[in-house]
Amino acid sequence: MSKLSTTQPAILTIAGSDSGGGAGIQADLKTFAAHGCYGTSAITALTAQNTIGVQDVLPTPSDFLQKQVTSVLSDIDIKAIKTGMFFDASNTQAAITALKSHYSTNSSDVTGSIPPLVCDPVCVSTSGHTLLEPNAIDYIIEWLFPLATLITPNKAEAELILSRRKSAATTEALRSIDTLEDMLLVAEELLCYGSKAVLLKGGHLTVLPEDVRDVAANHPTLQVVRDGIMPNGENMEILQANLNSAGMQLVVDVLCELRDDDRQKQTTTLFCHPRLESTSTHGTGCTLSAAIAAELGLGSNLTNAVRRAVQYTYLGIETANSAIGHGHGPLNHFHSMGETIIPKITPTNPYPFTSLLIHRSAHVWKAYVEHEFVKLLGQGTLPSENFIHFIRQDYLYLKYYARAYALLSAKSNSFPAIDSATQIVLSVLQEVNTHKKFCASFGITEDQLARTKESPATAAYGGYLIDVGSRGDTTLLLMALLACLLGYGEVGLWLKKNVKTGDGGWVIMQNNPYIQWIEDYAGEHFQRAVRIGLETIEAHTAADPPSPNRFKEWYAVWERCTELEKGFWDMAMNLS
Amino acid sequence: MSKLSTTQPAILTIAGSDSGGGAGIQADLKTFAAHGCYGTSAITALTAQNTIGVQDVLPTPSDFLQKQVTSVLSDIDIKAIKTGMFFDASNTQAAITALKSHYSTNSSDVTGSIPPLVCDPVCVSTSGHTLLEPNAIDYIIEWLFPLATLITPNKAEAELILSRRKSAATTEALRSIDTLEDMLLVAEELLCYGSKAVLLKGGHLTVLPEDVRDVAANHPTLQVVRDGIMPNGENMEILQANLNSAGMQLVVDVLCELRDDDRQKQTTTLFCHPRLESTSTHGTGCTLSAAIAAELGLGSNLTNAVRRAVQYTYLGIETANSAIGHGHGPLNHFHSMGETIIPKITPTNPYPFTSLLIHRSAHVWKAYVEHEFVKLLGQGTLPSENFIHFIRQDYLYLKYYARAYALLSAKSNSFPAIDSATQIVLSVLQEVNTHKKFCASFGITEDQLARTKESPATAAYGGYLIDVGSRGDTTLLLMALLACLLGYGEVGLWLKKNVKTGDGGWVIMQNNPYIQWIEDYAGEHFQRAVRIGLETIEAHTAADPPSPNRFKEWYAVWERCTELEKGFWDMAMNLS
Repeated sequence: MSKLSTTQPAILTIAGSDSGGGAGIQADLKTFAAHGCYGTSAITALTAQNTIGVQDVLPTPSDFLQKQVTSVLSDIDIKAIKTGMFFDASNTQAAITALKSHYSTNSSDVTGSIPPLVCDPVCVSTSGHTLLEPNAIDYIIEWLFPLATLITPNKAEAELILSRRKSAATTEALRSIDTLEDMLLVAEELLCYGSKAVLLKGGHLTVLPEDVRDVAANHPTLQVVRDGIMPNGENMEILQANLNSAGMQLVVDVLCELRDDDRQKQTTTLFCHPRLESTSTHGTGCTLSAAIAAELGLGSNLTNAVRRAVQYTYLGIETANSAIGHGHGPLNHFHSMGETIIPKITPTNPYPFTSLLIHRSAHVWKAYVEHEFVKLLGQGTLPSENFIHFIRQDYLYLKYYARAYALLSAKSNSFPAIDSATQIVLSVLQEVNTHKKFCASFGITEDQLARTKESPATAAYGGYLIDVGSRGDTTLLLMALLACLLGYGEVGLWLKKNVKTGDGGWVIMQNNPYIQWIEDYAGEHFQRAVRIGLETIEAHTAADPPSPNRFKEWYAVWERCTELEKGFWDMAMNLS
Repeated sequence: MSKLSTTQPAILTIAGSDSGGGAGIQADLKTFAAHGCYGTSAITALTAQNTIGVQDVLPTPSDFLQKQVTSVLSDIDIKAIKTGMFFDASNTQAAITALKSHYSTNSSDVTGSIPPLVCDPVCVSTSGHTLLEPNAIDYIIEWLFPLATLITPNKAEAELILSRRKSAATTEALRSIDTLEDMLLVAEELLCYGSKAVLLKGGHLTVLPEDVRDVAANHPTLQVVRDGIMPNGENMEILQANLNSAGMQLVVDVLCELRDDDRQKQTTTLFCHPRLESTSTHGTGCTLSAAIAAELGLGSNLTNAVRRAVQYTYLGIETANSAIGHGHGPLNHFHSMGETIIPKITPTNPYPFTSLLIHRSAHVWKAYVEHEFVKLLGQGTLPSENFIHFIRQDYLYLKYYARAYALLSAKSNSFPAIDSATQIVLSVLQEVNTHKKFCASFGITEDQLARTKESPATAAYGGYLIDVGSRGDTTLLLMALLACLLGYGEVGLWLKKNVKTGDGGWVIMQNNPYIQWIEDYAGEHFQRAVRIGLETIEAHTAADPPSPNRFKEWYAVWERCTELEKGFWDMAMNLS
């Protein structure tokens, strides 16, 4: 499932609190967030805990635990549940009661209406602290496992569970889990306890690639998932130049699930990944089960949920910041997220990207759209020679501008994009005709117009457009084309408003010789182009949010073009 | 400060737990995470709470609260602290004792060694529930405020604080905060309580733009920050087309801070933003104070920290998912983060991007690098006519390949990038010479070689390179150039290994007629180019992490080129 889905499913964790932030509900909430889910929590016990160990545990009274679960379930539509550490039998019972009483109001069969539930039967912390009163485990086995989509014991927990309830011959024979074959046997055996599936975690066992090969050979229906592993023969010689792949040690998690089509049969999958040498493993179990719950809440099937969660947890260890705390440090829960630059489009902020560009460049933007040239034009007092110089240079500029849109069309990879760029080329050609008419009205013939000598400001701007268009992608070219479109739209609206209201000490001149120019850019035709331009760029950048560096590159192009626009009007004023 | 900094400062929140996940330590931890900080927490009280209200509160015994704070501080280097809801005086005292005893071990002046502390004097929840026992507030005022960098009361809390301790004439006169002028007075008055600064939050007061103008005119030293506001006159006519900016209502937060240079004077700043009509405001105060603490932990000065935190919180409300819960829903804490596609570079995974490309395209990649042509070449049993056909077409292909690198050079925007692309053009020209020699050794003259008719497979691949190079940016072009570089590197290494070991049933042939070809691609010169190529693409993509859509575009180019490479060897095999 895509992380950061827009649906943002809510997930509930029922677990202990880790003040150090690496395990318990803190790890769960971080994990839910990293999956784009909304996290809620019911705390079974407080711990005074850091990366070195658990200094103290304070159980939550049963009735208060029950109240927390009920509060969440009664208000928020929970799409998946994860349970972690409980303290004792009554505490466990309280959570189960809350779940049962909420989900049995709709149906007598709780397991039918309860959302996916991942039960992490936490007994002992990574730092070695026993977290569960012995009598609680029986409660969990008897009452919680049958509600669970999945249980996720590690080696020690699986051995403890088996020791509490001997139900089959295999168990009698099995005293400890020492090999991958043992894991397969035990995972299957644990299915008898009533959950739909068992994930037996292999973090405490070292497995070699040949062990996986042997086991796979013995069990032909076994599925083997190898993510992030590059053993020999997988055509990745080039990536292994610096890595010692010989004697690679693996961690293998075993998923055993009842088949939907035949509840008497099960499917077993091995999830293999390289063993990492790391002390940043505090909260690994919490994180994995939380990630599975999040994936299930997002709609993944169980195998995919486990596969992605295993990979997520692996990367959390691999990218952990080992500088946090002095003992077993936390995972990096947010390795799969990065900073975004552009706020989301909302009804109150329909143009967040453009708004950001203009805010950041406020100084130069203002110098452009409130240029002396613009003000004199609005007042009708701009000397005609300045206007004529401007129009003649703008005529030359429009050749670059049309070519730049033609280049955009040439670089486009879809028919609608080709169409839209081409339509703008045609619009610009029309604009050229109005320029010819302006010039004619000032006594400049078409021949004189064509022989206009290009000013440095025109050459600089035009050349920059073609340069950006040649070296960048279509988005970068759109950035270059934006300043002209938006600025003239802004100038048109601003002038028209001022000319109408007489604000800014301006005289309302019906006989302003430039009124047609103002009407052109303030008019519906051009303003429609501005709105289409705005929406296009916003849609573009929302669909492909830039990294900070990419945004910097876009911004530089926008700012440069805004400066070049100002330079263009400087040129018109000093006839350069 | 940049969010998602690599330093990941640890922040501690001392506050209540909100089972519903929108306020309390849950909101704080989410906010810390969104700022790239590592969150830790000491829980002052549990609540059974959802978006509708607080159903019950269970205070944490004082000694256990103290243990949590001590556990965190004794192990983890905390860069900033935020306090939220306390329950009663003894509970408050416990937290203060833990802070004082930790930070006074190094210095008798606690305020000197304690990291920035933001105290949110939470008294009443958004849903109207009184969260603090009356006797606790005096404790907070007397003992916690003097340790605080900043206190962040809202209107009701400020009024309550003033009512508990009347210290100046202004307070006597002031019964409630009704205007922006009142806010200024009260913020300044609250400074007397011992914190270095006061942020008086304005969410419960409606202010108009003209109120801000008037107040600013009355107080010439006042600073006014307007983020995300587009009032008239700010040259954003085009963005307001669909927005009603007339009669805009503002929320104004007032920051009053002691000046570093003269502790008798203070600086006051107004932070203005548009009032949002939203019910998604549960946890707004928690979020704001947590965001300020995070920014301070990242190293921002107070004004910038508040400015960014106000903006962060505003966007959290604006982008909230109103579907969560039936009452006052939570903010969107992760509006500033997006999904990343490429895992981070780590010592155990130095080429995460390339590894991802190859894993995703495993099927077609294998068909390319373990092509029948390659195997026969390794065995030395490839008919010479197939090899000659291949070499002649590869000769034509290298013309496109050289031109594509020249295009890369032409599109590059830095001298090192121009240099590196140009060096590769020169390398390819050298490779052309070895092709001539191969041909000569098979009796093909240079003239015959030059008159080779281009195969469709060659034209398809070459044309695609030039197409991608023309329409995309330099990164996209690099994606297109990658399959050839990496694939030949892979084939070289794989063949050499197999030829040496005789694996795969191959005969070790010293007289393999193609041994020179194998040596060329397995040799240090070409393998060095492969490593440079790998490192370049990894550095590129790490510096500019792609959005999911951009990655999809990159991947499509990579996969297409891998297919075209396979097609090239198909062509060699069937002499097409």
